[in-house]
Amino acid sequence: MEKKPARHTRERIAACALALFNAHGAAAVTPVAIALEIGISPGNLHYHFHNKGELVGELLSRYEAEIAPLLEAASLSDDVEDLWQFAHRLFDTLARYRFLFRDLNALMADYPAIAPRLKRLIARKEDAARRALAGLSQSGQLVADEAARGMLAVNLSLIGTCWLAYDEARSGTAANAPARGASQMMLAAAPWLTSDAGARLARLSRDALARPGQRG
Amino acid sequence: MEKKPARHTRERIAACALALFNAHGAAAVTPVAIALEIGISPGNLHYHFHNKGELVGELLSRYEAEIAPLLEAASLSDDVEDLWQFAHRLFDTLARYRFLFRDLNALMADYPAIAPRLKRLIARKEDAARRALAGLSQSGQLVADEAARGMLAVNLSLIGTCWLAYDEARSGTAANAPARGASQMMLAAAPWLTSDAGARLARLSRDALARPGQRG
Repeated sequence: MEKKPARHTRERIAACALALFNAHGAAAVTPVAIALEIGISPGNLHYHFHNKGELVGELLSRYEAEIAPLLEAASLSDDVEDLWQFAHRLFDTLARYRFLFRDLNALMADYPAIAPRLKRLIARKEDAARRALAGLSQSGQLVADEAARGMLAVNLSLIGTCWLAYDEARSGTAANAPARGASQMMLAAAPWLTSDAGARLARLSRDALARPGQRG
Repeated sequence: MEKKPARHTRERIAACALALFNAHGAAAVTPVAIALEIGISPGNLHYHFHNKGELVGELLSRYEAEIAPLLEAASLSDDVEDLWQFAHRLFDTLARYRFLFRDLNALMADYPAIAPRLKRLIARKEDAARRALAGLSQSGQLVADEAARGMLAVNLSLIGTCWLAYDEARSGTAANAPARGASQMMLAAAPWLTSDAGARLARLSRDALARPGQRG
């Protein structure tokens, strides 16, 4: 009989931790609860992750790996269709790691080792938004000076960081939250667009809303 | 010798709890820490507030009492100057009770009794924004149909709920955060305004930024 590979157990722990953290917040979930959920001993879990901070760090690494190419592509964008696609992909990724930005300051206080990484992620999000807006401005699809683009980038990043937490607090449901978040983000950018780019964005929005559950 | 009035002790407890909750988040502060801080026994604190949930509830009541007339006035507004004043007052109040929206979902999960009240507060914030935008639209200072105004109201409420938490996470400082939050909120509304109303808002903004530490 083959021995179960350690890699497999590590994966199961990470997947289970992610699901439980997303459902209840990282603060409310103990390593013992994770071990119980997947039917291993707390000692076995401890062999793979010495504490909850290591688990949070591992999941943050996965989020960073997924979000980095997305932010890179967004910052090179000069078209409104790219912005639309970006918003949807961003919120899909955010939803899969929603615990990271659910109680952001508590998470940073509880795990000081990962706080600078979360801070850097937000800065990179703002930077990607700023560059995308500069691209749209250069290609004549957006009318806003650099100061306004800077503040708009902060609002876009705020929506792209806090939407899921805000929406959960107000509606108590996660249903369709990523798509609604993407729409709220596009609404923030829309009035700065020239009429042609704005009309294209409105069409994408309308088409997406006409097909609930799907993406444009 | 006069006996110290119970009312006075209750006030000291509430003020100290607010300061500690704001600094560290409600989850990180124990009743014993509050009692120690103001030099009373845990038993005396327990006489006034039976648990942390009661303390959080009392502070939430104070926030509700301060924010209610503000939201009422905002929803009756039909002028851009009112909107500007509202944003500044909102963020000043938020800053004094910042723990309430710092780790919002964790707070709602930790104190289920106050969760519906926080949810209702967010709904009232969105409603006030929606009515203010309808007023600006009727007086010809804002151009947006009802659907766009509804989504913009959600973005304004999102900024007016999450800004301090977001800004703390990205900058690590609370310095001038309310004024910056008010500016971010106004930036969200600005492009929807007619050129005259927009110019007046831009002038208010410029004047305020030229007098750092003061308000316009």
